Amino acid sequence: MKEVVLGLLGLGNIGGGVWDLVRTFGGEVEKRTGLKLRIKKALVLDVKVHGGKEVPDEVLTTDRNDILEDPEIQIVCEFLGGEQPAASMMLRALENGKSVVTANKMALSLHFDELRAMAKKTGAGLYYEASVGGAIPIINAIQSPLIANHIEQMMGIVNGTTNYILTRMAAEGAEYEDVLKDAQRLGLAEPNPAADVEGFDAAYKLSIMGSLGFHSRVFVENVYREGITNVTAEDIAYGREMGYVLKLLAIGKDNGDSIEARVHPAFLPADHPLARVDGSLNAVYLYGHSFKDMMLEGRGAGDAPTASAIVGDIIQAATNAVHPMPYMREDALPVADDWQTRYFIRMKAKDAPGVLAEVAGMLAGEGISVSTMMQKGAAPGGKATLIFITHLAPEKAVRRVVKALNPEICQVENVIRVES
Amino acid sequence: MKEVVLGLLGLGNIGGGVWDLVRTFGGEVEKRTGLKLRIKKALVLDVKVHGGKEVPDEVLTTDRNDILEDPEIQIVCEFLGGEQPAASMMLRALENGKSVVTANKMALSLHFDELRAMAKKTGAGLYYEASVGGAIPIINAIQSPLIANHIEQMMGIVNGTTNYILTRMAAEGAEYEDVLKDAQRLGLAEPNPAADVEGFDAAYKLSIMGSLGFHSRVFVENVYREGITNVTAEDIAYGREMGYVLKLLAIGKDNGDSIEARVHPAFLPADHPLARVDGSLNAVYLYGHSFKDMMLEGRGAGDAPTASAIVGDIIQAATNAVHPMPYMREDALPVADDWQTRYFIRMKAKDAPGVLAEVAGMLAGEGISVSTMMQKGAAPGGKATLIFITHLAPEKAVRRVVKALNPEICQVENVIRVES
Repeated sequence: MKEVVLGLLGLGNIGGGVWDLVRTFGGEVEKRTGLKLRIKKALVLDVKVHGGKEVPDEVLTTDRNDILEDPEIQIVCEFLGGEQPAASMMLRALENGKSVVTANKMALSLHFDELRAMAKKTGAGLYYEASVGGAIPIINAIQSPLIANHIEQMMGIVNGTTNYILTRMAAEGAEYEDVLKDAQRLGLAEPNPAADVEGFDAAYKLSIMGSLGFHSRVFVENVYREGITNVTAEDIAYGREMGYVLKLLAIGKDNGDSIEARVHPAFLPADHPLARVDGSLNAVYLYGHSFKDMMLEGRGAGDAPTASAIVGDIIQAATNAVHPMPYMREDALPVADDWQTRYFIRMKAKDAPGVLAEVAGMLAGEGISVSTMMQKGAAPGGKATLIFITHLAPEKAVRRVVKALNPEICQVENVIRVES
Repeated sequence: MKEVVLGLLGLGNIGGGVWDLVRTFGGEVEKRTGLKLRIKKALVLDVKVHGGKEVPDEVLTTDRNDILEDPEIQIVCEFLGGEQPAASMMLRALENGKSVVTANKMALSLHFDELRAMAKKTGAGLYYEASVGGAIPIINAIQSPLIANHIEQMMGIVNGTTNYILTRMAAEGAEYEDVLKDAQRLGLAEPNPAADVEGFDAAYKLSIMGSLGFHSRVFVENVYREGITNVTAEDIAYGREMGYVLKLLAIGKDNGDSIEARVHPAFLPADHPLARVDGSLNAVYLYGHSFKDMMLEGRGAGDAPTASAIVGDIIQAATNAVHPMPYMREDALPVADDWQTRYFIRMKAKDAPGVLAEVAGMLAGEGISVSTMMQKGAAPGGKATLIFITHLAPEKAVRRVVKALNPEICQVENVIRVES
């Protein structure tokens, strides 16, 4: 039996979940692994808030040094969230030779190189299974059992809040703003929802997952990012009519000489495995040259699922004689600012036949061909809705066409990428 | 750079796939892991069959001792299939301190304790990711990232041949025998298909997956096993009409004081994540007390996907300072010979009203209540089809009712479990 002494930075939902799991399941973990987990200290903002409850007073501290500078503490678990002071505290823990376990995609994505370099220097471990996909063992899968693969593609639903909103919009025909308000009321979206609905959270996760999967640094600032705030019930309804389901996707592709990394709403064919991943579920679809296609699906958030991943990482950190250090190619592949996919273009126009000629002509001028066109009639004299779905086309060419369309002839209301 | 010297037992489809992956991707593996994989010897039945092809002649041998007794070979990969001589060769390799990587669920399931005991004795590693679910990292997930969980349930589609047959039966309305013949013609089913269609293959896999997930030995002879040979197009069609999809499932449940372990055809609600896993895909659904629900889906067979798992294991075996040894509770839980689920009972009868009274009465006598009843009328004087779907009921009670039904009144044509 080997004792593993832990310090927790934060004792909120996730920290509390880890406390609970260690308390209730620590005995079983000891049987299975020979490791006795002991949480020595937990950093809180105010001991009065936590005092007198389940966590003994002597465990609580407001002084980070009680954790970061205590030589007895071997593993530091970070649950503070946000970039700072989380990143510098993790860095300090690693500097002191303590392994770090974190669920903090933001601090990790922004300070990935710095944290890895420090871990390498001191031989400490850096573990972050919970940072992408919650309980889903995607980080582990990419780094270990699937390592003998050129991963060509990853496509993930990695943000539960937006997936919940899109699922309800689709089920109820409701508008974004209304569902968002309800999600906020239910505590499923933050009062300031930007991190989720603007795609920042998914972009951090794609940055981490892509860097590991493609073995080439994908910096979050190079990830193309578009949130769900412009998605309407109308888009979802028309998409469904044409056999598609709308999801916020984090897409990474290794094209050999460049990487695609983009987060945006996308239509998926209704029979795509990701299309039925609903509500707050997360899932990542992967294609590797050797394993072919794979999908991992599960709970991307929640105290218990996140604690499951954290404690799994703690056990790894305590077991590994040498901590894994992901290989990154030195000649990092550029992240592409153009790519090919299909496009759903929805517009309104008075004179449908004239618009058809105008749009078709301009698309053809850019070498883009149309796969499907749908017209929804209007009252005489009113405006008709026209929807074009293109064949594979370059993003930039589509943007050029959309920009060049004469707004007196037609008004483009939305452009949504169509993946498969 | 550390050289890892490998010996392959077998150079058929899987062995050839491993050879190819090491040859084409070994350089990248070396960059990523610092390990240089070298296949020193491959055991074949006849060197003439393999000679003069891609594998150099000096690698080929017909003498197992060239692998098992060569002190330079560190890891032995077994691709012979079947129980013997595979099991004794793996045992000998372990005895000689060589780690073993295998995809052989049969030999592994039947000799699990013996192989683990030898591995423990000599400190060698025993790795078998490819034995269940092919490329899907299910063995790894259970043993490592999900270890801090009481896994309460596992439900898997783990045999590609039967899933292919059932998928085609459903799509084409075809009968079992016809699709089987076609699958045999296409090389997707063996000339003697029993291992797949009678559920043996799935039972071996459930034995391994269940033993690991429940930390309690599940011997294959205690797994309830029923194949797909009695499934008819009629069952599938009626099930679909009632909202169900038929799959061959490997089901494991930890009920606290006993384990359920059963392989049989089962109806799943059409919106269940496993219901749309079609063709030769594999998938395992898991429920853990901490991670909640999860599904891992991918390629369960094929040279490249299997090689992906094998090479992943090789890298683990070469990296781990201490090889993982799954914990098994000493007071192994009994495997239940009774369980509760729902039942689809299809019967034919001349006098439908009389049958309804008879069946309902007998089910009620066993405390079983009916959830849905469907009658498909017949020509006057002909036989009607009656389908009952029960609420949760004990298996043994249902069997008693079926056995006791008077065949002069109604003929039970099939009983299929309904899972959710």
